[in-house]
Amino acid sequence: MYTKASDPTDGPLTLEELQLATRNRGMPLEAMRYDITPVGMHYLLTHFDVPFVDADSWRLQVGGAVARPFELSLDDISAMPAQTLAVTMECAGNGRARLRPRPLSNPWLYEAIGNAEWTGTSLWPLLDRAGLNDDAVELLFTGADRGLQKEVEHNYQRSLTVEEVKRPEVMLVYAMNGRPLEPQNGFPLRLLVPGWYGMTSVKWLQGIEAVTQPFTGYQQHNTYRFKQSADELGEPVQRIRPRALMVPPGVPDYFSRHRMVDAGRVELIQGRAWSGQGEITKVEVGVDGSWSEATLGDSVGPFAWRSWSFAWEAKPGEHTLSCRATDSTGAAQPIDQPWNYQGMGNNSVQTVAVTVR
Amino acid sequence: MYTKASDPTDGPLTLEELQLATRNRGMPLEAMRYDITPVGMHYLLTHFDVPFVDADSWRLQVGGAVARPFELSLDDISAMPAQTLAVTMECAGNGRARLRPRPLSNPWLYEAIGNAEWTGTSLWPLLDRAGLNDDAVELLFTGADRGLQKEVEHNYQRSLTVEEVKRPEVMLVYAMNGRPLEPQNGFPLRLLVPGWYGMTSVKWLQGIEAVTQPFTGYQQHNTYRFKQSADELGEPVQRIRPRALMVPPGVPDYFSRHRMVDAGRVELIQGRAWSGQGEITKVEVGVDGSWSEATLGDSVGPFAWRSWSFAWEAKPGEHTLSCRATDSTGAAQPIDQPWNYQGMGNNSVQTVAVTVR
Repeated sequence: MYTKASDPTDGPLTLEELQLATRNRGMPLEAMRYDITPVGMHYLLTHFDVPFVDADSWRLQVGGAVARPFELSLDDISAMPAQTLAVTMECAGNGRARLRPRPLSNPWLYEAIGNAEWTGTSLWPLLDRAGLNDDAVELLFTGADRGLQKEVEHNYQRSLTVEEVKRPEVMLVYAMNGRPLEPQNGFPLRLLVPGWYGMTSVKWLQGIEAVTQPFTGYQQHNTYRFKQSADELGEPVQRIRPRALMVPPGVPDYFSRHRMVDAGRVELIQGRAWSGQGEITKVEVGVDGSWSEATLGDSVGPFAWRSWSFAWEAKPGEHTLSCRATDSTGAAQPIDQPWNYQGMGNNSVQTVAVTVR
Repeated sequence: MYTKASDPTDGPLTLEELQLATRNRGMPLEAMRYDITPVGMHYLLTHFDVPFVDADSWRLQVGGAVARPFELSLDDISAMPAQTLAVTMECAGNGRARLRPRPLSNPWLYEAIGNAEWTGTSLWPLLDRAGLNDDAVELLFTGADRGLQKEVEHNYQRSLTVEEVKRPEVMLVYAMNGRPLEPQNGFPLRLLVPGWYGMTSVKWLQGIEAVTQPFTGYQQHNTYRFKQSADELGEPVQRIRPRALMVPPGVPDYFSRHRMVDAGRVELIQGRAWSGQGEITKVEVGVDGSWSEATLGDSVGPFAWRSWSFAWEAKPGEHTLSCRATDSTGAAQPIDQPWNYQGMGNNSVQTVAVTVR
């Protein structure tokens, strides 16, 4: 009937992976130049289809284990106290296609990243207004997007603990970079959970339900897990691991993306680094395996990436550049990524091959 | 040193193709619902890197074989008579990855398409003001994007004949869907050539030069050619061939994109059709190889796609849906695409596998 995602493979890229790669999109790495990623360059992963939502008839349902369930229109939500935050978002599957054997899903290399400026309203005051029952343990967020994974048909759903949603930066957002959300980014409303991988920030949000048991639906229990085999439950994927990426220097060859740099000048290598676990405290740049500390710049905001730069005296020949971030928890990017079954959280260092001529 | 694009292959997808697919992006086919494609869903092909252009210091140079060369700022161009046109743009390499053997470049399947509303000023009055010399035969358009293809380093350049640029709809555009161009769409200014494949609409435009000999640079002579072997010059790729695409019905399976439709109701199949050669005169829908005419809707504009729909009485079982456009020149989409070396202009019919249950 249709091709099912099988076990990870050492085989070639499949048509199914290519179909996903042509629909979804990474941020071209040169876009790391911008503090704020333009809407059309931000990474995007759509599990099912981008749903068509009519904003006029759309309502957000807030209910479940609460004292006072209610619904809100987009106008209602837009009238609430607004905050705007720059937030770095990354797909939990970023780097998946670099693992061996290769887990089968969207075949990201490095580019599933972006840093947008999101405007919305803090979630907790809304839940406070609904009045969570004492036995409520989680909030379940339901999107309008619907489809099948491993034969289970469902709307996209994820949950968070009550504790987690008390953070004031957990928001319901209706604008990105100062404009209403475009359809692919979750119009008319999405959840935004700064610091967590992107799957948590449910798009096309239509319902928030307080539940008295931890949610065990497909997107919570069957996927987004760190595990070593199909049968294992594994550990949930949550906060973004530290990572640095650089703007590839010089000019590219179209097909191979190999870089060419002119000799005889100091090349300023620039990039960004981020972590959902803590502040970025160090970025190192590797030139042919020899590591030096980069100069750290400012963060774009408390939940956003931090700039860094490194002056490279580019000598003629073939070189490999790398970069590696460390955060305030002491976590650093691995050179070789420990493997996991679903290809989650691969934050191994970026390498860029450069010819100086 | 780096992997070169080789001859077309029957082998598996390469890392180089995947790198291109994760940077560039197709329009998810469900976006065919929108008359005007949101900026962040429009297809995008960047040959080299998205260049960083400072709009304040940027100037458009108009010169070469003209009586009165001049330069213009973005303010100058924005002050000229403006027109807004909806234009369907498609990559000449759309469908490439479906050819056997597979030409090696960006591995598009169906999605290299979009229909935006572009605002700018007609090009011809500017050239008239410059005063083309009698021996000027073409206009050469130079972008700020630079890199290598097959070891030739160059800025992206394409030319058009004097006759072609007299069409009033050939424009210099600075806005897309009512907002300034985002960087990836050519900020601050791009060329727009309605009816032609996308490579003609040079992004990040910095120069227009009247030339007295036909341009034979890389992007004009070495690529974007219909040819059967590496050595042949071939015929230039120009106007967009007719094509129809449908919004895939029902809901998808995440990995395979296989579609599931509920039985017992009439499924309205909707889509768009376009051609750069003439008006769309017919769209046919194939259900398991049996063809019927779809109902044509309106065009979004004289250079934009036309909607169509077809009521499908979906019976339980496995089905294959297809669609096929014919234009006013009599050209129709082929069921099986004649092969060419670079995978250009593949407008073979879309097929969508659907389970009705």
